[in-house]
Amino acid sequence: MPARSTALAGLARRQAARQLPAAIRPAFTTAATARPSSSSLSRAAPLRAFSSTPRRAGGNVPARADYKKLTAADVEAFKSFLSTPASSLFTTIASPDGSWTPVNEDDLIGYNKDWMDKYVGHSQLLLKPKSTEEVSKIMAYCYKERIAVVPQGGNTGLVGGGTPVYDEVILSTEAMKEVRHFDEVSGILTADGGAILESLSNYLHPKGYMMPLDLGAKGSCHIAGNISTNAGGLRLLRYGSLHGTVLGIEAVLPDEKGTILSVGMPGGRGGALRKDNTGYDLKQLFIGAEGTLGIVTGVSIMTPRLSSAVNVAVLSVPDFKGVQKVFQETRGHLGEILSAFEFWDQEGLELVLHHTGQKTPFEGEPEGGRAFYVLIETSGSNNDHDSEKLGSLLEHLLESEVIADGVLAQDETQVASLWSLRESMPEAAGKLGKVYKYDLSMPVKDMYSLVEEARVRFEEHGLIKDGSIKSVVGYGHIGDGNLHINIVADRWDEKIEKTIEPWIYEATAARSGSISAEHGLGVMKAPYVGYSKSDESIDVMQAIRKLFDPRGILSPYKYLPPVKEPQAAN
Amino acid sequence: MPARSTALAGLARRQAARQLPAAIRPAFTTAATARPSSSSLSRAAPLRAFSSTPRRAGGNVPARADYKKLTAADVEAFKSFLSTPASSLFTTIASPDGSWTPVNEDDLIGYNKDWMDKYVGHSQLLLKPKSTEEVSKIMAYCYKERIAVVPQGGNTGLVGGGTPVYDEVILSTEAMKEVRHFDEVSGILTADGGAILESLSNYLHPKGYMMPLDLGAKGSCHIAGNISTNAGGLRLLRYGSLHGTVLGIEAVLPDEKGTILSVGMPGGRGGALRKDNTGYDLKQLFIGAEGTLGIVTGVSIMTPRLSSAVNVAVLSVPDFKGVQKVFQETRGHLGEILSAFEFWDQEGLELVLHHTGQKTPFEGEPEGGRAFYVLIETSGSNNDHDSEKLGSLLEHLLESEVIADGVLAQDETQVASLWSLRESMPEAAGKLGKVYKYDLSMPVKDMYSLVEEARVRFEEHGLIKDGSIKSVVGYGHIGDGNLHINIVADRWDEKIEKTIEPWIYEATAARSGSISAEHGLGVMKAPYVGYSKSDESIDVMQAIRKLFDPRGILSPYKYLPPVKEPQAAN
Repeated sequence: MPARSTALAGLARRQAARQLPAAIRPAFTTAATARPSSSSLSRAAPLRAFSSTPRRAGGNVPARADYKKLTAADVEAFKSFLSTPASSLFTTIASPDGSWTPVNEDDLIGYNKDWMDKYVGHSQLLLKPKSTEEVSKIMAYCYKERIAVVPQGGNTGLVGGGTPVYDEVILSTEAMKEVRHFDEVSGILTADGGAILESLSNYLHPKGYMMPLDLGAKGSCHIAGNISTNAGGLRLLRYGSLHGTVLGIEAVLPDEKGTILSVGMPGGRGGALRKDNTGYDLKQLFIGAEGTLGIVTGVSIMTPRLSSAVNVAVLSVPDFKGVQKVFQETRGHLGEILSAFEFWDQEGLELVLHHTGQKTPFEGEPEGGRAFYVLIETSGSNNDHDSEKLGSLLEHLLESEVIADGVLAQDETQVASLWSLRESMPEAAGKLGKVYKYDLSMPVKDMYSLVEEARVRFEEHGLIKDGSIKSVVGYGHIGDGNLHINIVADRWDEKIEKTIEPWIYEATAARSGSISAEHGLGVMKAPYVGYSKSDESIDVMQAIRKLFDPRGILSPYKYLPPVKEPQAAN
Repeated sequence: MPARSTALAGLARRQAARQLPAAIRPAFTTAATARPSSSSLSRAAPLRAFSSTPRRAGGNVPARADYKKLTAADVEAFKSFLSTPASSLFTTIASPDGSWTPVNEDDLIGYNKDWMDKYVGHSQLLLKPKSTEEVSKIMAYCYKERIAVVPQGGNTGLVGGGTPVYDEVILSTEAMKEVRHFDEVSGILTADGGAILESLSNYLHPKGYMMPLDLGAKGSCHIAGNISTNAGGLRLLRYGSLHGTVLGIEAVLPDEKGTILSVGMPGGRGGALRKDNTGYDLKQLFIGAEGTLGIVTGVSIMTPRLSSAVNVAVLSVPDFKGVQKVFQETRGHLGEILSAFEFWDQEGLELVLHHTGQKTPFEGEPEGGRAFYVLIETSGSNNDHDSEKLGSLLEHLLESEVIADGVLAQDETQVASLWSLRESMPEAAGKLGKVYKYDLSMPVKDMYSLVEEARVRFEEHGLIKDGSIKSVVGYGHIGDGNLHINIVADRWDEKIEKTIEPWIYEATAARSGSISAEHGLGVMKAPYVGYSKSDESIDVMQAIRKLFDPRGILSPYKYLPPVKEPQAAN
């Protein structure tokens, strides 16, 4: 493998001179593609238009409960709550007196269906309120009339959490998207729930700050949706989860008053504070509640300083054991500047190269035709220091033969190119077929054996041979023990799904893992929460849900298994 | 001020040579005192012995509720739940058949009374169960019999949260103090609730890890107590709050089964995982719940890598505006290596120097006799890099005349000495008199005006002149907007207290602050939560408390204002 030794020699020379090792090898010989600022998920606009007839995958959905079926009188009531009904209310229900113009079912399909073409509902009413007060009036009415509601952000979810199951009213945060306040001293940002993640990033960058989370869907996803799904993403390793960075939440509760619960928000009692121990930290319940406790209409969040120095390297590692070794060495060498540690497998690389038309950044094929790939990102305040640390790590990894090859980005364009190898993965999988996506967390050492088991299983079930399953790709966030498996099928199919589920959840539970690391439960995983949580925990969760939503009108059929019927006393 | 210019010249020379600036000036010309590994709070042993008659400060305590008064039969029952009753059960109640030896009231005083000599209860029974199962049996019995319970950790609290108000059973976590598990790859530590913070630190250090929190009481406080009060401490700026670092909790609920709720703990379903989005994050409720929802018997927590390089500087800054300026510059220059940013005022410095007999580390008196003092700590993985960053900051601050003087620690002993200036503050105040302690958070710019207002107020009320109030000291964590005011009085006194409260809470609310940043509510602040939280929030909190503790047996009279009586329907 001449590439390695060449790189090693060069590195050693540079390192001896105590200079920044310019590169293991400059990244990419092909024209570098810019890091997509909006990924496949953010190409939301076309979603609103397509009119194919999707089918709902999975047979787990409970029957429609006895929520009120909407009438024209209800539409009239909703209309009265809205300051600009013409741009906030869309319904397929006819108006008896012509006071609104109904829309076609197709006009609502972008809200009734998810972007993967996997989940579809049949809501007759889409509301896009413009203020928290409007949301409050809507919720009070829905409580009184027992009308089911599904809150929807950017509709970028993967588990059918944001789309209606039946005819729930869709309450979109789309029209509430402003930054409310930013404190340049503390870095605390306050925004409407419907603010788009990327817009917030763009707002912060010129001020020297950044959002503490970043994910593929950033161009479409709403901050309230991020919070409601406790989105993890690419920066969690460095900046921690939203449970640590979110300081406040404004939410409208599904009760008779449409109570506006505001905790840790500027202007309210207490304000947005980094430390506040006055009672239960209620906002935490809303982080990851998927809209089952209330509609998140506002948020305050701590934003870190923008790093002035960012470096990215992608390494080729012969086996998964090596990936773990690289992770340990990386944490030791890079310490406080490590900001991402991502991995993907050979299938993942090939999928992306095929999709983007890029050439591999590495010279030649890996030994045996297979390798794992690791992306390491550093973010710091001094590029000389960071480059020295990263150079020392890479030299060490090459010398100890833990890695086979590597590329180091030389400029921002190459940083973007290297990131695109990882970030194009969902899009590339989506182009190849229908993607069964699983988002699991578990101890790092157990992560990849699950992917291997899956391949063997599908082979044994004949799903590879008959072309039902086209590829099984493993990638994810090593630093967080978070594995994404994408199983690319040629169609949505019950037989395929039954071969995957619940086997994949059992395999995760056997590794003491979580069946939902960062994507949420929605309608897809609601029945399976018991694989990762005890009966006692689920009982408490159901009691909390009932406490907040006594009439069960928010996001029904989702998030938790159906409440167990109490046993009759004998 | 010759000291400054000398230091500046030296710095500039060293900086020009691109070397580590050895110091603004070596820290301390007096013999350096070692950083106390256990502070005043950790000198808990004597507490168990004193027998003075303390008085309870404050007139906010509700009347005793109609909990069962303990009988010998109850003691017999508790005895049956314990594997080693002789070392786990201590009661002043006589045994009708001699099956246990009662203790004197004095033997329990160390558990009935807080370390500040401010809060005292009259419990007749102290339990120190050895296992979660024992706690479960105890709680099930207390539920059935409606016996009130106060959980107690290291009894290091400041708000009367850990001591009984009347005759509540004291449930101490003292006998459950083992490390259960440590994963050297992930850094995830699992321990019993009664494990002492410093013991956990000592366990981790040889393995290259550290606890993500550090506070003065580390030698005595229990990790379950830290979690139950959401302790902040000295490292929050860098490692974030426990809401981000705690991964799992095992807690015993006050219900008929003494349900053991285990979430995010190894061995249970789901394990201890960095990412887990399967349902509401129940553990978050227990963080800062002060034992009102359940008894925390176990915890899993992410521990960061031990930093190989630690640097500390203490600076003298002419005014509070300068302190804010230094903070902004420090964040800019030190970025990812900043691990603490503490401040104290002239009164604080003088108090500590008087108490410890140390000489000031600065040359001469500050201009006008007053200054503010800032402690900056860096923690990183490369001492050369960190020293260069810190040197560049200090040079910049001196050149721009934002700081008047400064000292930089040269070795670990000096690091400890500089830290002791800040960490000895509570102890020094305690030696001078009875200390009314307030722990507030608010926007940084508003922090110190509150201290100044307090001094004017006490002056106007004649409390300074008559010697009732001996000193008003302000210090705290600038990075977290967390101000500690210590008001040193000559006695616990209702007149003094009424001059302070509720004025100080009103002054905090006027600054959109929190009346409890990191110390909790306990009995002291329960009536005042409304200064920092809306009525809606408090209503929700009370409903959650009732959901977990329907018979109200855990930590009664504390944490939240009494539940409003429902208004009679007319």
